[in-house]
Amino acid sequence: MNGAESIIRAARAGGVEVCFANPGTTELPLVAALDTVEGIRAVLCLFEGVCTGAADGYARMAGKPAMALLHLGPGLANGTANLHNARRAHTPIVTVVGDHPAWHRKLDPPLAMEIETMASAVSGWQRTCTTSGLLARDMADAIAAAREGQVATLVVPFDLQTELSGSPVQVTREGEAGRTGHRAIDDVLAFLRGHARPALVLGGRALSRGALLAAARIRNACGCSLLAEAFPARMERGAGLPDLARIPYFPEAAMEMLKGYDAFVLAGAREPVAFFGYRDGPGSLLRDDQARMHLAGPGRDAARSLISLAEALGAPAVPSDELLAGPSRPGLPQGPLDGQKACAVLAALQPVNAVVVDESITNGVWYYPLTAGLPPFTLLTLTGGSLGQGPACAVGASMACPDRKVIDLQADGAGMYTVQALWTQAQEGLDITTLVFSNRSYDILKVELARHGVRVPGPVAARLTDLAGIDWVSLGRGMGVDSTEAGTCEVLARELERSFAEKGPHLIQMNLPMSTEITP
Amino acid sequence: MNGAESIIRAARAGGVEVCFANPGTTELPLVAALDTVEGIRAVLCLFEGVCTGAADGYARMAGKPAMALLHLGPGLANGTANLHNARRAHTPIVTVVGDHPAWHRKLDPPLAMEIETMASAVSGWQRTCTTSGLLARDMADAIAAAREGQVATLVVPFDLQTELSGSPVQVTREGEAGRTGHRAIDDVLAFLRGHARPALVLGGRALSRGALLAAARIRNACGCSLLAEAFPARMERGAGLPDLARIPYFPEAAMEMLKGYDAFVLAGAREPVAFFGYRDGPGSLLRDDQARMHLAGPGRDAARSLISLAEALGAPAVPSDELLAGPSRPGLPQGPLDGQKACAVLAALQPVNAVVVDESITNGVWYYPLTAGLPPFTLLTLTGGSLGQGPACAVGASMACPDRKVIDLQADGAGMYTVQALWTQAQEGLDITTLVFSNRSYDILKVELARHGVRVPGPVAARLTDLAGIDWVSLGRGMGVDSTEAGTCEVLARELERSFAEKGPHLIQMNLPMSTEITP
Repeated sequence: MNGAESIIRAARAGGVEVCFANPGTTELPLVAALDTVEGIRAVLCLFEGVCTGAADGYARMAGKPAMALLHLGPGLANGTANLHNARRAHTPIVTVVGDHPAWHRKLDPPLAMEIETMASAVSGWQRTCTTSGLLARDMADAIAAAREGQVATLVVPFDLQTELSGSPVQVTREGEAGRTGHRAIDDVLAFLRGHARPALVLGGRALSRGALLAAARIRNACGCSLLAEAFPARMERGAGLPDLARIPYFPEAAMEMLKGYDAFVLAGAREPVAFFGYRDGPGSLLRDDQARMHLAGPGRDAARSLISLAEALGAPAVPSDELLAGPSRPGLPQGPLDGQKACAVLAALQPVNAVVVDESITNGVWYYPLTAGLPPFTLLTLTGGSLGQGPACAVGASMACPDRKVIDLQADGAGMYTVQALWTQAQEGLDITTLVFSNRSYDILKVELARHGVRVPGPVAARLTDLAGIDWVSLGRGMGVDSTEAGTCEVLARELERSFAEKGPHLIQMNLPMSTEITP
Repeated sequence: MNGAESIIRAARAGGVEVCFANPGTTELPLVAALDTVEGIRAVLCLFEGVCTGAADGYARMAGKPAMALLHLGPGLANGTANLHNARRAHTPIVTVVGDHPAWHRKLDPPLAMEIETMASAVSGWQRTCTTSGLLARDMADAIAAAREGQVATLVVPFDLQTELSGSPVQVTREGEAGRTGHRAIDDVLAFLRGHARPALVLGGRALSRGALLAAARIRNACGCSLLAEAFPARMERGAGLPDLARIPYFPEAAMEMLKGYDAFVLAGAREPVAFFGYRDGPGSLLRDDQARMHLAGPGRDAARSLISLAEALGAPAVPSDELLAGPSRPGLPQGPLDGQKACAVLAALQPVNAVVVDESITNGVWYYPLTAGLPPFTLLTLTGGSLGQGPACAVGASMACPDRKVIDLQADGAGMYTVQALWTQAQEGLDITTLVFSNRSYDILKVELARHGVRVPGPVAARLTDLAGIDWVSLGRGMGVDSTEAGTCEVLARELERSFAEKGPHLIQMNLPMSTEITP
């Protein structure tokens, strides 16, 4: 067994089942090893940002670590933007990057780059392998580190992959995710009882079904409000679950929402901060006089802590019905499409148990409020703000959940960054419907320009926010995806229903008016 | 005048004329400033790798620093692969990256990333601005640093862009690029005369017309051979210039070419090393017993040094005719296309004064040997091995040389990494013909797999090197580029002639047999 095989065996032993790959010459022994070791499905992506975004989507849905196989420094660089989103989502990802042999790297060949430097920007754990006999241990350590909810990067020089290696070490099983002890629960209990208008802010793993129901019990017992962080990695939603208000993107709206509370218990969520720091602030979205306490950090198993808290509060085993959303759907709108109607058409027709990836940026703002009463579904959002998450995340989510319909709410500008993901969707026959909000504009930048005082963009600003001339139907078909367009609610409804009835990837370009009015 | 305006004014004063941009919220004051300061053309690219690849192509052709405007850490990460190519090409690029205000960054908002860490992987110079009054000086320093032949990265926090700033400082004019003094010329002279079979290896700026003619004079005087580095940033070529043998990609072939020489004078070129370090080596392509001497380092003005050396050798003012390529073109081949015939069709029809970007990887190997006698043209190659250079580099080259036909020899796999460049080509109406070598395969990896001992790839290796299902005609049209396909020499010739006769972007998908036989 060579070093590459020992790595792949260790990956399999550690629970890795899928490898999203864009390999090159320095990873070829690993490619060959994927042919000799059973149990890991290799998925080719034509750009590394697709690999890492898919790994993120996969691991968010599968709850298992995903593997991305990338080529040297440039490959890692191309994958970094979506690793950033994964880092913010606390997603367990093992990134394996080949490197030149050390004896060759010191000659500074053309493709040499400071891989370790690049990796440190997004990795919570990283290691450059030095001994072929220890590669299995290195991989096991990487998986263990990833399971902590972070990106673990393993740099594997080519020569170590080809050398003979020993037997793989036994990988230790996943430890119990940290939970909050009794003392901490007592503290939170006292904190909640000591304030008049507390809110429970849920994020990270505190948005699972079990955590949400525990949160509803807590509300039942003490009357606190339930809020969700602005950009959840994975949130369960729909009828039978509490309808959480999400903290808005713009800081003024967020502070308006939060101003009435005197205390916040943060479960799996970070303290809310502004997405961008504008000229007159704010940075933190909480005032100094608003108290805060952490029940469980992001990436930790907040569900257990919430259940413990509910029990400490003496909450009923099942929350009252009025605290949970009842089944409801909007009716089908009619006539020419706009962003709001597009969201309503989807909400009217969304199938049971869908996985919805939301990279809709501006036009999707209407979707969330319409969906509290839909049949249960899972929502994945843009945790780190790096564009190009949607098409790639959908690939991974569908690989993890082949029996669930994956729906990508996709802004046209953001979708272009990882448009290559459509090819993998087609090649793997993934059951994904991509809804492109085609407003032919970086609308969010127009809104931000207006906030900056530029209400009528000059010719350069207009040119730098104008996306005219992208035919998504042609792009989708060029990569093998069944693609159509819709300019009315009726056509969108028909095409959506067709895409939901058929298996496999579909794309619908939703032709929207340019420059939707969104008040900054 | 605010800080953003002072930066843009300083850029203009420093000779920047084009800004390839993919801005976000933290760069909006700079966007607004591009509307108030005249003289810098802003070009939108839909992915940051297009911005940086275009900046590379522009600066290689214009001989002026290019500017790329990127959004925070993720934007810089997306642009890093092509900045790596630019670094290897010693291209002067100023990369401007917005950042959160320092007071906000310390709150670690979602898009925060270690920008400086990322930047250090490719930047020869970098600075994070700290005072709005010094932004103009910072930009002037960045331009001066870039003019040394490197990537200079300026990180500009948002708040500094919006604050009032002083007058821009006067930017010092470009200094004379370093040249080799008399003493060094004497040394090289003695070195050349002291060896029986010397070769002059030309690279970097030693591949300009003037440098090439000086090299031919040197050959005339002392009989040395003339070689070119494997991947030149910019090489002039065609009738009336010496026909340089390029050092091959694979190390065995390279060492075979180089083995007969006892000494190498390196002008603008690095000592040749293997592209990849295989199991049994080699690393360096030169043996210890082969002497070597540097006439001018990469990025330096080697042409002057070559002229000085020619004069010190008492070379004739004009080299003998037999040392220069005479005019010649291959005839038009006929019948079904393959890689070799595709290159021949282009060589038969290539217009005068073309700029040829070569990211053809495997199928373009036949192009170079066919082109020594063509009408003079410029060749730009993949200096750093980061895929996705071609479509982006062509954008920049065409912006720099609007009156020259730009031809992108594009491998299909590599082209997918920056396929978004086609949109900018269409929007800007750039006069580019993209020739896609569609072999639907990462052929280079199949060759490398065979070198690794895998002559019949297993199912995973086959799947990870198979690119079936990309319709480039549809992709091109989806972004507004006139796109067609050709399966025969006759159709390719007709479509090529049409693309050369018309202005504006064209794409021709050349349908080639799969898996061209290339001996490892």
